[in-house]
Amino acid sequence: MAHAHITPSNIHLKWSRNIPPALTVPSGTTLTFDLRDGLNNQITPASTAAHIADLDWAQTDPAFGPVFVEGAAPGDVLRVDVLELAPAAYGWTAILPGLGLLADEFPAPQLKLWDLSAVAATGFAEFKAGIRVPARPFLGVMGLAPPTDGDFSTMPPYDWGGNLDCKHLTQGATLYLPVQAPGALFSCGDGHAAQGDGEVCGTAIETPMTARLRLTVERGKPWVRSPHFLTPPGPLPERGREYAAVGIDADLREAARKGVRGAIDWLVAERGLTREEAYMLCSVVADLKIVEAVDMPHYAVACSVPLSVFVDDKS
Amino acid sequence: MAHAHITPSNIHLKWSRNIPPALTVPSGTTLTFDLRDGLNNQITPASTAAHIADLDWAQTDPAFGPVFVEGAAPGDVLRVDVLELAPAAYGWTAILPGLGLLADEFPAPQLKLWDLSAVAATGFAEFKAGIRVPARPFLGVMGLAPPTDGDFSTMPPYDWGGNLDCKHLTQGATLYLPVQAPGALFSCGDGHAAQGDGEVCGTAIETPMTARLRLTVERGKPWVRSPHFLTPPGPLPERGREYAAVGIDADLREAARKGVRGAIDWLVAERGLTREEAYMLCSVVADLKIVEAVDMPHYAVACSVPLSVFVDDKS
Repeated sequence: MAHAHITPSNIHLKWSRNIPPALTVPSGTTLTFDLRDGLNNQITPASTAAHIADLDWAQTDPAFGPVFVEGAAPGDVLRVDVLELAPAAYGWTAILPGLGLLADEFPAPQLKLWDLSAVAATGFAEFKAGIRVPARPFLGVMGLAPPTDGDFSTMPPYDWGGNLDCKHLTQGATLYLPVQAPGALFSCGDGHAAQGDGEVCGTAIETPMTARLRLTVERGKPWVRSPHFLTPPGPLPERGREYAAVGIDADLREAARKGVRGAIDWLVAERGLTREEAYMLCSVVADLKIVEAVDMPHYAVACSVPLSVFVDDKS
Repeated sequence: MAHAHITPSNIHLKWSRNIPPALTVPSGTTLTFDLRDGLNNQITPASTAAHIADLDWAQTDPAFGPVFVEGAAPGDVLRVDVLELAPAAYGWTAILPGLGLLADEFPAPQLKLWDLSAVAATGFAEFKAGIRVPARPFLGVMGLAPPTDGDFSTMPPYDWGGNLDCKHLTQGATLYLPVQAPGALFSCGDGHAAQGDGEVCGTAIETPMTARLRLTVERGKPWVRSPHFLTPPGPLPERGREYAAVGIDADLREAARKGVRGAIDWLVAERGLTREEAYMLCSVVADLKIVEAVDMPHYAVACSVPLSVFVDDKS
């Protein structure tokens, strides 16, 4: 097939096995997806935090597709090779009321707009003077139709994929998803120019994205019952020295929340950010690592900030 | 002070602010700790899995100290610089009944002994033919006396440290702990030659260790209310390409358990390990990453295995 192309008109706002395919392709086809962002481009470079109250939440995490892959049947695995990802010239990060790991502590909307026009040349996007974030584009949403009838929200991830928000699925990565419905019915969306493990404030660097993906049916991998993935070949991106705060609690989620709160406290005290800036910076660069999950009754989760984001850092 | 030295006789099996100091030192002192392992050397190179039933659990995670640091008072921070770590010539990893993130699924004791005698020369320890683990020594236990009277178990970590099992605290790292009692009363132990984030089976490569640490009182850092740390200067260790299984669940801990189970399934199916070998290998090399903690109602946790542990891996 010379030109397999999914456009913004192929949008769906729920996952369902009953959505007619936008395209039907043989296994092994490479497709181009022109993707609106995770709020269906409702936020633009002209937006301000005041616009957040007017957003239509029904348009959260739209998926574009679905693609029917010939031969794919329940029990098979759909292999998704991420061949190329190109963010738009702008992006945004927001604190959206009710969303995020510390939603109760950040009730007011905030919006940070990013200029991504120099990313292709420099590899970085500026957060504010002296702080820059390495671009690591990926798609937050890659998923398949569900195993049963009915509409499924596009907000959470499922065993068959969806809004995984997995920052490791960058260009060169391979994702394996367990097929639930005939043809697999693959869709994707929610471009992110960068994100930390956890996406703690609820948004990454959200951006429209053009993606080139190859979809291949694989058989004989019954152990893939949830998303599995391979990171890109070659060395992982260099993060350099990190500063981390460890949250400790009898509840794993509460330990993660304490870790994020600790990293925010540090960014405010030692790096001069506002609490809202710190929360958003954590969402786009800090990684939530489960340090230990076995020393009962307390879990430990580190929220790790790479010091390389501070242009003048000498450590 | 020419020679500040903590020996195995300075053992304590509970945290308490009422343990008399083994040593009193000025702020800025470098000390050498000769540390028995996390089960007080009850397992030796001659042990087998049959010995696990005879272990005395009261000797779990012994701490060695405490060191009274002059001038340290509640509200201060104790800065611990990890200057040098030397594991013994052997180590062990075990599945201990009742311990571990998948304890209910692995009821039978298992023991893997490691030859660490070549680690200083090669940087690696052999798990089995064709699989080798990079040595990244650190101390599982570094902590301070608690804020109140009474005995505290050495098993869990606390806001003032203890059994953090934080693999990032390698040679060159700096740990910050909030002081709770006069003199801080620092102790450490639980040498690990390598571990993944999560320590999922409950043990790392456990080993006796000689450690050289510098203890310094710092003031004016009220944001350090739980352990904070800086990783060593310079690039982080190269992990190369990773294979990961993502666990998805409405409960964060259950998502982590599913991620580990997925990685075990893959190691068994594609790398020919037994389930017990796979669980132990995950504990020493796989990282638990909270991929997203905000796309409600489902969390996603990746269990990531670095492919470089497979000597012949071509990916």
